Amino acid sequence: MKTDFKHTTTLRVRYGETDQMGYSYYGNYAQYFEVGRVEALRGLGMSYKSLEDRGIMLPVAHFEINYKAPALYDDALEITTNVSELKGPRLIFHYEIHVNEKLISTGSTTLVFVAKETMRPIAPPDDFIKLLEKHAK
Amino acid sequence: MKTDFKHTTTLRVRYGETDQMGYSYYGNYAQYFEVGRVEALRGLGMSYKSLEDRGIMLPVAHFEINYKAPALYDDALEITTNVSELKGPRLIFHYEIHVNEKLISTGSTTLVFVAKETMRPIAPPDDFIKLLEKHAK
Amino acid sequence: MKTDFKHTTTLRVRYGETDQMGYSYYGNYAQYFEVGRVEALRGLGMSYKSLEDRGIMLPVAHFEINYKAPALYDDALEITTNVSELKGPRLIFHYEIHVNEKLISTGSTTLVFVAKETMRPIAPPDDFIKLLEKHAK
Amino acid sequence: MKTDFKHTTTLRVRYGETDQMGYSYYGNYAQYFEVGRVEALRGLGMSYKSLEDRGIMLPVAHFEINYKAPALYDDALEITTNVSELKGPRLIFHYEIHVNEKLISTGSTTLVFVAKETMRPIAPPDDFIKLLEKHAK
Repeated sequence: MKTDFKHTTTLRVRYGETDQMGYSYYGNYAQYFEVGRVEALRGLGMSYKSLEDRGIMLPVAHFEINYKAPALYDDALEITTNVSELKGPRLIFHYEIHVNEKLISTGSTTLVFVAKETMRPIAPPDDFIKLLEKHAK
Repeated sequence: MKTDFKHTTTLRVRYGETDQMGYSYYGNYAQYFEVGRVEALRGLGMSYKSLEDRGIMLPVAHFEINYKAPALYDDALEITTNVSELKGPRLIFHYEIHVNEKLISTGSTTLVFVAKETMRPIAPPDDFIKLLEKHAK
Repeated sequence: MKTDFKHTTTLRVRYGETDQMGYSYYGNYAQYFEVGRVEALRGLGMSYKSLEDRGIMLPVAHFEINYKAPALYDDALEITTNVSELKGPRLIFHYEIHVNEKLISTGSTTLVFVAKETMRPIAPPDDFIKLLEKHAK
Repeated sequence: MKTDFKHTTTLRVRYGETDQMGYSYYGNYAQYFEVGRVEALRGLGMSYKSLEDRGIMLPVAHFEINYKAPALYDDALEITTNVSELKGPRLIFHYEIHVNEKLISTGSTTLVFVAKETMRPIAPPDDFIKLLEKHAK
């Protein structure tokens, strides 16, 4: 199932995230995307915390990012997250980060629904599928 | 019980640890001290991992540090950790970091032995006390 | 000069900030305090970024923290920062972090005004002193 | 120019790098790969620090990673870095991380040679090209 659900959240670059190039270090974007998708799930109606409380986890299987322009200290990052596809136990997100309306990076992550107890892939919970179906395209 | 057990470990400052001042960010030292005390415990004969495997955890209750001079990218940090005192469930460490024989920071942490299940303070395990006693002063 | 200027900012604990104890790692609080003081300075009328743009930096000389209770994933941290004292080139901040009105940690940092070019201590800029004087006690 | 130059470096997973799943957080691998490529460049005969000292920087333009199995606290990561291709101003690295001989992740990064002053792409320095040519395939 593909969806067009999108959610935008804003985050400021912290001082400790800059490196001596004066850029936000390339490793921070994994956290930026994580904040983006957690807020997107919350916007969809499902908190990631409540999933974990029910014994479901979503480890990342694949992460990919293009850096087009740097993010600088104190920049306000507009992170737009598209919950783009559910494919068996796999949930795919696409991301865009803008600063002052300029696109500075694009990326995607693939997460897998797993049971906390066994760490084996499982089917996504029904209530989550229902939430997604509202936005199916 | 006070001890004079000291252990030194070396660590290079990573690029991602620098900030736009060109210094290793002040928040990284918590990790540097953590590496120092984990290696000190290993040097004493007790891996922190084996403690956790036995259901014992050591959260930090107090952390304090003086920054005398900056650490720069690729600097080799000589972290000297003194397992300085055991006081009931509390374990106190003191640290010194040198770069090229120059003292760049000093600090201390207080950790507390807690049971994983209850997260309540407990007496340190006997085998750990025995290891420490060899170095009592 | 001592001041009673206080400012509160809210921050959510990110997933990547938790450790395997399920706590926000003790090293993250340096960043939490940094966000607190940056927003406090902004609230006072002086952005830290504008200071750096004028060739002034504020490295941390001392950092100290008490951890009273853990912060957990997705907790909303209420960080209250008191710009407590200006003493020559030194600027002292005190912090309290609350979660759901429970005090979970207290701490302080001492920063030093330095010139970017020389990295030597300097007198704080006049406009900053004037902003602080409004809140002198 | 493609090369078969490979270099392996070992790193232990730090406690602060774990998350509440008990895994090393997916965002840490950017730092693991950075350590891998910095040590690979050093092994090749060129320290990254010396490049920056000469006014040359290597920001990351693309980063991609597959997580096959988690890295756990205190695991010794064997990071193998292949300086795989130089293509105009672009330098491509491939990485494999093993724990106890098991492959746990693969990835790649594309970096770009830029002048510090202008932040515009430049040709790689001649001495670097000469070092690479020794390993051309």
